[in-house]
Order: sequence, then C-alpha cells, then structure tokens
Amino acid sequence: MAKHISKLRAKMSPEAREKAKAKTESMLKAMPLAELRQALELSQKTLAESLDITQASVSKIEQRTDMYISTLRRYIEAMGGELTIKAHFPEGDIEISQFESLHNSHGQALL
Amino acid sequence: MAKHISKLRAKMSPEAREKAKAKTESMLKAMPLAELRQALELSQKTLAESLDITQASVSKIEQRTDMYISTLRRYIEAMGGELTIKAHFPEGDIEISQFESLHNSHGQALL
Repeated sequence: MAKHISKLRAKMSPEAREKAKAKTESMLKAMPLAELRQALELSQKTLAESLDITQASVSKIEQRTDMYISTLRRYIEAMGGELTIKAHFPEGDIEISQFESLHNSHGQALL
Repeated sequence: MAKHISKLRAKMSPEAREKAKAKTESMLKAMPLAELRQALELSQKTLAESLDITQASVSKIEQRTDMYISTLRRYIEAMGGELTIKAHFPEGDIEISQFESLHNSHGQALL
C-alpha cells in the first residue's frame, strides 16, 4: 500500500505535490514544536542561528513539557509564526494579553 | 453622560442586564488575567483557595508579564477555563501540543 502511494506521488506534478502537502499540513492541527519545525522544513541548526543559541539548546527546548511563555514566543517567532494564548470557556474564547510587553523578562537565558 | 447610562441601566430588567453584560464580555476578546478573573466575577481569594496558594501569590501571578506555561494553565483552569496555545502562520494556525502531559513539571511552586 505504501509503495502504491509513493508511486502515485512520483507521478504527481511538483505543483500538485505542493498542494497535497499543504493540505496535509493544514489537517494536522496539533503537534509538538519539533514536529512543527520539521513541517516547516526548518533545521535545528537554522533555528539555533536565528535565536543565537546552540543547536543543543534548541533540542532541549523541543523536549521540554514546560517552559516560560517568552521562550515559547521566541521559538515560534524564529519559525516565522506568532504565539497566541487563549483561555477557552463554554461562553467563548478570550485571548490573554498580558504577555506581549516583553519578549524575555527573565534575562537572556532562553531555557 | 455616565449618569444617564446608569439611570438607563437601573431601568433594565435583571435579564436584560445579564444579556447586555454577556454581550459586552464577548466583545472584549483580549485581556490580562486579572481582568478576565473580574469579568468572571471571581475574587483573588476564591482563586487562591482553589489553587491552594495565598492571595498574595494570585496577585503576583496577575502582575507578571512572563510565567511558566504550567502556571498559566493552572490559573486558567482554576477559573473554569482551558488553556490553548497556538502558533499563527499565514497558512493557518497550529496548536502546540507538547505542554499537556504535565500540569506543573517544575515542582509545587506556582510562581
């Protein structure tokens, strides 16, 4: 089955392949940071350079299950994205707006 | 003008007042934590009891411009909400799913 699909893919035009890839990506709505980075075809090395930290630090961030909001924001912005933090209630969603004033209020350390 | 509006409000039925309040709240889509707590008519004291911390700690959390994601999640859940973290890209929004496994990975301290 996998072979059949890969054959099918090989026959697709680059445009069609791009379209299919974009569609797949839009369907994957929730993922961890490392997976998101890979979906965007960015390497840890590229991100490390953009954030001015070591590749090992990028790897550490991607393995964490908790971190400062400022760290997450910088990581996401380095990928070209924008962090949004919301509180979901049965009555509706509220964006929490108090974390926008500073990028990193606890010094230079990103971890 | 303010007086006029307050007179108008006094004439509204409790139902109409509730409706107007709900409408106003749904229009305020972005706000800091303290404001959200007030909109939900919760006191710092209530939240402190729910989180098993002091009222002073609740006050400190509300004044911070950066905090651990786990702290924010616990604060929002204490208000009956659910934290959602998304990365916004021109191509679409991706929910970041790596912070759901632990509520507070750095011990008991909420600050």
